[in-house]
Amino acid sequence: MKVAILGGGGFLGRRVAERLAVSGKLAGRSITGMTLFDIVAPAAPSAPFPVETVEGDVTALPAEAIPLGTNVVFHLAAVVSAAAEADYDLGRNVNLRGTDAVIDACRRQVSAGGRAPRVVFTSSIASFSGGQQAMLEDNAKQVPANSYGAQKAAAELLLADASRRGFMDAVSLRLPTIIVRPGRPNKAASSFFSSIVREPLLGLPAELPVPDDFRVWVGSPNSAVSWLIHAAGMDTLPMGLDRSLNLPGLSVTVGEIIAALDQVRQGASALVTRKPDQSIADIVGGWPAGFTATRARALGFAPNEGLVELVRAFVAEDLEPTRRDRGLA
Amino acid sequence: MKVAILGGGGFLGRRVAERLAVSGKLAGRSITGMTLFDIVAPAAPSAPFPVETVEGDVTALPAEAIPLGTNVVFHLAAVVSAAAEADYDLGRNVNLRGTDAVIDACRRQVSAGGRAPRVVFTSSIASFSGGQQAMLEDNAKQVPANSYGAQKAAAELLLADASRRGFMDAVSLRLPTIIVRPGRPNKAASSFFSSIVREPLLGLPAELPVPDDFRVWVGSPNSAVSWLIHAAGMDTLPMGLDRSLNLPGLSVTVGEIIAALDQVRQGASALVTRKPDQSIADIVGGWPAGFTATRARALGFAPNEGLVELVRAFVAEDLEPTRRDRGLA
Repeated sequence: MKVAILGGGGFLGRRVAERLAVSGKLAGRSITGMTLFDIVAPAAPSAPFPVETVEGDVTALPAEAIPLGTNVVFHLAAVVSAAAEADYDLGRNVNLRGTDAVIDACRRQVSAGGRAPRVVFTSSIASFSGGQQAMLEDNAKQVPANSYGAQKAAAELLLADASRRGFMDAVSLRLPTIIVRPGRPNKAASSFFSSIVREPLLGLPAELPVPDDFRVWVGSPNSAVSWLIHAAGMDTLPMGLDRSLNLPGLSVTVGEIIAALDQVRQGASALVTRKPDQSIADIVGGWPAGFTATRARALGFAPNEGLVELVRAFVAEDLEPTRRDRGLA
Repeated sequence: MKVAILGGGGFLGRRVAERLAVSGKLAGRSITGMTLFDIVAPAAPSAPFPVETVEGDVTALPAEAIPLGTNVVFHLAAVVSAAAEADYDLGRNVNLRGTDAVIDACRRQVSAGGRAPRVVFTSSIASFSGGQQAMLEDNAKQVPANSYGAQKAAAELLLADASRRGFMDAVSLRLPTIIVRPGRPNKAASSFFSSIVREPLLGLPAELPVPDDFRVWVGSPNSAVSWLIHAAGMDTLPMGLDRSLNLPGLSVTVGEIIAALDQVRQGASALVTRKPDQSIADIVGGWPAGFTATRARALGFAPNEGLVELVRAFVAEDLEPTRRDRGLA
């Protein structure tokens, strides 16, 4: 079992690599090699199998990024929402042309007599709109309200078609908003969903730009990694032509997130300041408040852990590394 | 009012050009110039305004194809279903990269201080699946079963996003199967829907590869041209983020088409031979049997004329030219 992770230096790519390095297995088989590809060569985790790192641009994907005989490709290389909105060409190149490059690399493997690799792709709930009233069924139409979501939805179509044609065997996962992200607050409109937990746990203030009853569809970093790994090994036959899935995340209010924070560390939420920001509310207000995710549940994707467990996992796994990385230790 | 037609030498492009040349107007305004662009320079109809013809590849769209100050772009340049299935790279280049080139040309006009042009794009019901049981609502999800449909659905997403960003003001029309096409039978799986009317009217035999109760979603060439022209002048504000429309075609059985043929020319259907063909039935059997098209009706798109009127229009407008073109006169 040979694995390639495109975007292997990113937040989720690193975690997938680490999880696989620990287990040594994927889809019940021993991993015999892993390649990590990113714009800057990622750090290789210590693993019971050889790990190669490759540096490059996904739109000009080097052959070494997906070595011959690769069984599973995690395609996580992306320009995220705020960046794709700020730079149309960059978003289109990485999110669409990059996906075309992955399709072509898989095609070449098949043309050379190899098997069509499983490709696990990270799409996003940003490919939907509908807002606070929307609790979307699996057959809901994607009407994106941002370039990132439009590019992700288009890429899903191309990957499903490439699967139908036998170039690959793709599963596209529409990830929820991931909380709690480690590191620093960033310019993403969704940054505050993590900040309101992470910053108080670091003893730092955080601002809440939306009302407490604002509802958001979230997933944890650990669940996201588990979903990606499940998608790598699942039977895709029941998916038919539709290779995309909404995942069993959590539909929660910001108030519930804050209550979970206080349950894990009493009084921590005193560091959260309500500071309404219409420009942020306008962006995140377009995202659906939830999904039924019936199909993913039936295909064996485990429901996200509860909010308190999610905050506890952040404290156990990410709080001290974040403190160190930010020089707060 | 300046107009550009990309794919101006094709079946629909020529008809749009001719209709505009006759009326001299679009969206209630006088046309002051028209540019016809295609892979081979199209013939210019005689018109009460200047007509330029430009030859080239849509993926390397020359600036002259959409001259500065163009108000309306009909983007009809495409690689159709059978060809896109046979040649993946060709389909992707023309149907996707070509659409990106149109987006970029419009962006450049806006960057140069011009207005965002209205872009009328021909998408297709081939972007849906579902088959004989499917009578699809406007919010139905596109799950294409062919590369052409996947590329068209992806292009719709990119055009909607380009509209949201102000690069253009797009309307994507998902055309039904068009009958009666003039000319010769071709290799398209849908060719027989026209052949079973056209060939008997020419005194020639035709084969019917599906049962008489097979249901298909059709539109006439005249309705398609009317829909394209309506889309060029309509108010797009009520469309919101979703710039794509299912059109008010006709859901008819093959038996009903044959009955309309006999009503227009008694006994003509004796030239139609039932000859089941599973490979053709498999392809066309995936297409939805109908659409409610509620949204398009509310936006002023006129319902397709009835079947008998549709056959009569073919006889009046296209039968003799087809006879001449095929050397049957």
